[in-house]
Amino acid sequence: MITVNVELGERAYPIHIGVDLIHQTALFAPHIAGAGITIVTNTTVDPLYGTALRQALAPLGKRVETVVLPDGEAYKNWETLNQIFDALLSARADRKTTLIALGGGVTGDMTGFAAACYMRGVPFIQVPTTLLSQVDSSVGGKTGINHPLGKNMIGAFYQPQAVIADVGVLRTLPERELSAGIAEVIKTGAIADARFFAWIEANMAALNRCEPLALAEAVKRSCEIKASVVAADERESGLRAILNFGHTFGHAIEAGLGYGAWLHGEAVGCGMVLAADLSVRLGYLDEAVRRRLVEVIVAARLPVHAPALGEARYIELMRVDKKAEAGEIKFILLKRLGETLVTTAPDNAVRATLAAAV
Amino acid sequence: MITVNVELGERAYPIHIGVDLIHQTALFAPHIAGAGITIVTNTTVDPLYGTALRQALAPLGKRVETVVLPDGEAYKNWETLNQIFDALLSARADRKTTLIALGGGVTGDMTGFAAACYMRGVPFIQVPTTLLSQVDSSVGGKTGINHPLGKNMIGAFYQPQAVIADVGVLRTLPERELSAGIAEVIKTGAIADARFFAWIEANMAALNRCEPLALAEAVKRSCEIKASVVAADERESGLRAILNFGHTFGHAIEAGLGYGAWLHGEAVGCGMVLAADLSVRLGYLDEAVRRRLVEVIVAARLPVHAPALGEARYIELMRVDKKAEAGEIKFILLKRLGETLVTTAPDNAVRATLAAAV
Repeated sequence: MITVNVELGERAYPIHIGVDLIHQTALFAPHIAGAGITIVTNTTVDPLYGTALRQALAPLGKRVETVVLPDGEAYKNWETLNQIFDALLSARADRKTTLIALGGGVTGDMTGFAAACYMRGVPFIQVPTTLLSQVDSSVGGKTGINHPLGKNMIGAFYQPQAVIADVGVLRTLPERELSAGIAEVIKTGAIADARFFAWIEANMAALNRCEPLALAEAVKRSCEIKASVVAADERESGLRAILNFGHTFGHAIEAGLGYGAWLHGEAVGCGMVLAADLSVRLGYLDEAVRRRLVEVIVAARLPVHAPALGEARYIELMRVDKKAEAGEIKFILLKRLGETLVTTAPDNAVRATLAAAV
Repeated sequence: MITVNVELGERAYPIHIGVDLIHQTALFAPHIAGAGITIVTNTTVDPLYGTALRQALAPLGKRVETVVLPDGEAYKNWETLNQIFDALLSARADRKTTLIALGGGVTGDMTGFAAACYMRGVPFIQVPTTLLSQVDSSVGGKTGINHPLGKNMIGAFYQPQAVIADVGVLRTLPERELSAGIAEVIKTGAIADARFFAWIEANMAALNRCEPLALAEAVKRSCEIKASVVAADERESGLRAILNFGHTFGHAIEAGLGYGAWLHGEAVGCGMVLAADLSVRLGYLDEAVRRRLVEVIVAARLPVHAPALGEARYIELMRVDKKAEAGEIKFILLKRLGETLVTTAPDNAVRATLAAAV
């Protein structure tokens, strides 16, 4: 087992990474103070890992409830969130009740937001069961739900007590979701660490085969990088923006197609292709690096052609993104592997990128 | 104008108290950084003070939107909160948009919670228009909404940029709501400052007549006391519990009758009578002090007889209150004027208090 510590002062917490961690009572014990635990999971994950988690928690002698939500981004809304509140209140859960998120990013985001809001804040633990959530939503404290007019528009910054990232559970992950997770791993290498990027290129076959050691290394390095960025900018006032490389275009793809049509990681994969194209077009990035990035995205079995929403629609969607300020779109562009810049871009360059990418 | 500073490190903010402050552009200017402002108010307050506030903001040259919510505790729920999100998203409000709460406690709590959650946090300013919200919800950062199974069960700790407490606007406040605000003023004196309690006794007629100087003094001293308690315990882990004197019984009254039947301050007024009775019954408090407390509550035109919900129902309601832990009810009792203790109490003593109070 490897542990990455996210350094956030009194909100610091560990991310434990390894195989079969979900069975280890001792990993949960130090983080559960109250008398009750509520596991929040979904209809896909509960049959796979719900029993294992409940068995691991049983020796702690706590009252354990489980809330099983419908699975999918389409359910990341108030109605589903309210199912968690209903369950907590019906069980008379108090302020020391610990919530455990067992599932992917949607489960983690909703459980974290429920923990942030229930009685104005109760502790929670993340047990991410997708590669994407292990590398992405387990670091950063971003929680929330979607609104019909925008993704993640309602939420909170709220840190877990601990993250238990069991790469063993990824063996049941559909191939498409594995690839979506690899997209965020590629992103992390591209923006912050050229050596890690090269490691990803060299180990893509192992990652695609779901080899535990390769996955653990990818999760560890991704979490380390993201943790260092987040520690420097917990509330996303500046530096942290670089983590959104590929996300400006990616969010527009997701919103334009309707949430759930493409996986978040697929949209980010394609979004990186667009951001790299714009980077080259504006003279920041070498064409050779762009090509390496596109090749590794292809190798990860991710889409590299953007859906044909129309250029005007893309720009409209990006203007309402919550990273935009007063309608100005901020792009995270690449200068070289490991180095980014955040900037606005001329409309005609953005349109050219969109036209070239379809 | 008097200013009370709430010392919370980087979340510190001023409370400005005085007459006709709502017209003073200069009080708002330092706290509004972005290009847009969204005023959240209700159908009662908007016709009275909406125009005055918009005129005060006009010289700032910002885009100003107004969301007018239905008035009343019964609307302190997700559906109404979502009207704020709908308005913000429809106006394409960005992360630097400032929300201004113009109204009483319900408006302030919902606007603060909307500000806490919209894009994971935007700035907000409180312009409380009831005495209760000027002395109570303007200090402490508590925001939130009710759930059918409990009051304020969903919320966040989130501090405003500033509070503008204009005691001039209280002249349009219904008498019943003025009294409800005085209840919290009495509470503050009782738990923390015997001299202030004596000042309240001596000035009750002036407060009942809505005299601006008396109101300003009452708001100032209440905010000072509450601010010092909150500064020592922002997240309500200990000391801050004393602010809930009268609230354990009070919340049960509100929940038992259905939110809105009694005003919050009325329930707290009666709740203090019950808490004082229990304090005497358990040997902590002199009967003479209990009598002074009851007399000042009567002088404030507040109810001192509890609604007959039945003792079992009261206890059930108090057990599900969010101050309870694992079903144990924590009572804030009085030892003398200015001194409290937090404790559990034997069921039979609680039942005797309830039986005596109806």
